[in-house]
Amino acid sequence: MGHQVSEVELPPIFCPLETALHPRVRSVERRAEEWIHGIGMCGSEREAAWVVATHSAHFMAWFAPHAEDDDRLLATALWVYWGFGFDDARCDTGPLSGRPAQFNALACRVQRAYDAPSAVSDDPYVIANQDIARRFRSFAGPTQVDRFGHAQRAWLAGVAWQIGNQSAGVMPGLDDYLAMRLLSSGGEPTYALLELANGLEVPDREMHRPAVRALTEMAIMVAALDNDRHSLVKELAPGHADQNIHTVLMAEHSVPLQDAVHLATGLRDRVLLRFLDLYDQVRPTASADLRCYLQGLRYGMRGNNEWGLRVPRYLSRGHWPDVMELSELTYAEEPSDTRPGPVEGAPGIAWWWDRDLG
Amino acid sequence: MGHQVSEVELPPIFCPLETALHPRVRSVERRAEEWIHGIGMCGSEREAAWVVATHSAHFMAWFAPHAEDDDRLLATALWVYWGFGFDDARCDTGPLSGRPAQFNALACRVQRAYDAPSAVSDDPYVIANQDIARRFRSFAGPTQVDRFGHAQRAWLAGVAWQIGNQSAGVMPGLDDYLAMRLLSSGGEPTYALLELANGLEVPDREMHRPAVRALTEMAIMVAALDNDRHSLVKELAPGHADQNIHTVLMAEHSVPLQDAVHLATGLRDRVLLRFLDLYDQVRPTASADLRCYLQGLRYGMRGNNEWGLRVPRYLSRGHWPDVMELSELTYAEEPSDTRPGPVEGAPGIAWWWDRDLG
Repeated sequence: MGHQVSEVELPPIFCPLETALHPRVRSVERRAEEWIHGIGMCGSEREAAWVVATHSAHFMAWFAPHAEDDDRLLATALWVYWGFGFDDARCDTGPLSGRPAQFNALACRVQRAYDAPSAVSDDPYVIANQDIARRFRSFAGPTQVDRFGHAQRAWLAGVAWQIGNQSAGVMPGLDDYLAMRLLSSGGEPTYALLELANGLEVPDREMHRPAVRALTEMAIMVAALDNDRHSLVKELAPGHADQNIHTVLMAEHSVPLQDAVHLATGLRDRVLLRFLDLYDQVRPTASADLRCYLQGLRYGMRGNNEWGLRVPRYLSRGHWPDVMELSELTYAEEPSDTRPGPVEGAPGIAWWWDRDLG
Repeated sequence: MGHQVSEVELPPIFCPLETALHPRVRSVERRAEEWIHGIGMCGSEREAAWVVATHSAHFMAWFAPHAEDDDRLLATALWVYWGFGFDDARCDTGPLSGRPAQFNALACRVQRAYDAPSAVSDDPYVIANQDIARRFRSFAGPTQVDRFGHAQRAWLAGVAWQIGNQSAGVMPGLDDYLAMRLLSSGGEPTYALLELANGLEVPDREMHRPAVRALTEMAIMVAALDNDRHSLVKELAPGHADQNIHTVLMAEHSVPLQDAVHLATGLRDRVLLRFLDLYDQVRPTASADLRCYLQGLRYGMRGNNEWGLRVPRYLSRGHWPDVMELSELTYAEEPSDTRPGPVEGAPGIAWWWDRDLG
């Protein structure tokens, strides 16, 4: 792409949210690694090594630090490993990355295997997803299992959009990109794991409240834009998906990468500030399970950084992944942009700032 | 395609289900026609005439014959008109019918406009969908509005699969086809309209019960296969989507069209018989709203035939649609195949016959 990434300054991330790591992360990680090697979804030892190196057990252990049941924490972590493996093998850089027709079929087969216990497939990634669905059904009610299914389908739709853009050589505008990224980032299924990991059953009348949907979408957007930042170096390397918030803003405003980083950081901080504001309005009247879910959104945004700033997925440049080290992180003390929303040029997310949401 | 459709014998349909037509269908139809012309989604007078000629007000009036509120009946009928218009203009035969990349983007934009009241689009079909979402929000709770949204997304995923197959020249096998048709037929959103039209709020713990999901999927499959029969003549004409249960079975079993019609009828009857069996097990303990929803599935399967056997969409072969006449229909007195399931070669739907569902 010709961007001088090494000369770009990435400012520290503003993320004034609680963080904790599940105490049994190591034992869950060991069980997950056994599953990855046993389920046979990876086509090579190297592919499996990179899936292991996503450290999805840590990811999930930061998302749900107080999960009581290790089997729940394991199954939800397995989905995260699965998602990264699927993304790398079948979406971002795999043979389907420019073939939307083939991806559309695969996405529906994944979903059918998730929804229908009797479905049969010869694709190892489809089989692995069905194994995870079976685990979910063993400990969660059908509402939570279906909610996750809807979230997974939304993610697959976003990936299909992204792959379509790649195949057609389309660089989306900001508004389209944000709508796509809300889906393609995988934030919908990731946050839908909160109920499964923590054993929650948030009532329908709360989960579908527009304010709760807005909080969920904002938590997705913050994490998605943070991931665009974590993966900036990797994404700008040749052969990778070229649609991210930085390339989109460079095209939208005809600015260099450094300015796009600045604009992206400001946009992201404004979303987080609105999240914090709306959270304070919703929490006092929330049920215990909704409170735990909303706290999970906060753990998730922060945990996504605890993970993303350290994980070899984004940092290792070699053929094999490096080891992940739990070194200290530095966060920004202040947001870079405190203007109230809605964000200009992004009508698709403007409703998050509706006054009557709270 | 070279099939001698005129020589194929289509047996009468077995459909021993209640039927009624909403008494105010005509006035709702008039309001719907005003909306179609006013909302500006159709690109020509002829396109609008074909959308009007889908008689979706009748379709919905057979689905929800006892809907108390005309505004609800109108809004749900509008979605059916919209769905047929979108299908014809953007999916089956429109310019996107072989372009999955472009369709994937459009599908996500439709869904974003449905989910986000603030979203902006310059596509008249996207704008019209958002107008319908606004109507839904005016009379229904967010759970029902979201359920419909999930159903709409599932339908769009199935259409994306179908369009991908078209573009890649793929004729799916039976198992894949049934999974695709469950989605692409539009049955998920159509039956999700039942709550909206009738003002129901089926509790989560009931709506997500595997038995209720199985009943919904079976009702979708019966109507989808009946639609494949209604549209057989149209679909086999040049320039139309070539994936339907008959072409799939012809390829799967290397048999002529008449045998495929026989096999399709048997498969469809076996699904309906399992529906009737499971319905009798679920109904006694269902809440009042779930009972009304399940009755709606029955009205829907039968209404889909009352409509599909008469509608100019499938019967008119000219440039402009003919008038729909409410002539008498003849149904089969007995099912053509009474073998208990699961159906051979269709593992993706085998779970409908699980003994512990009831």
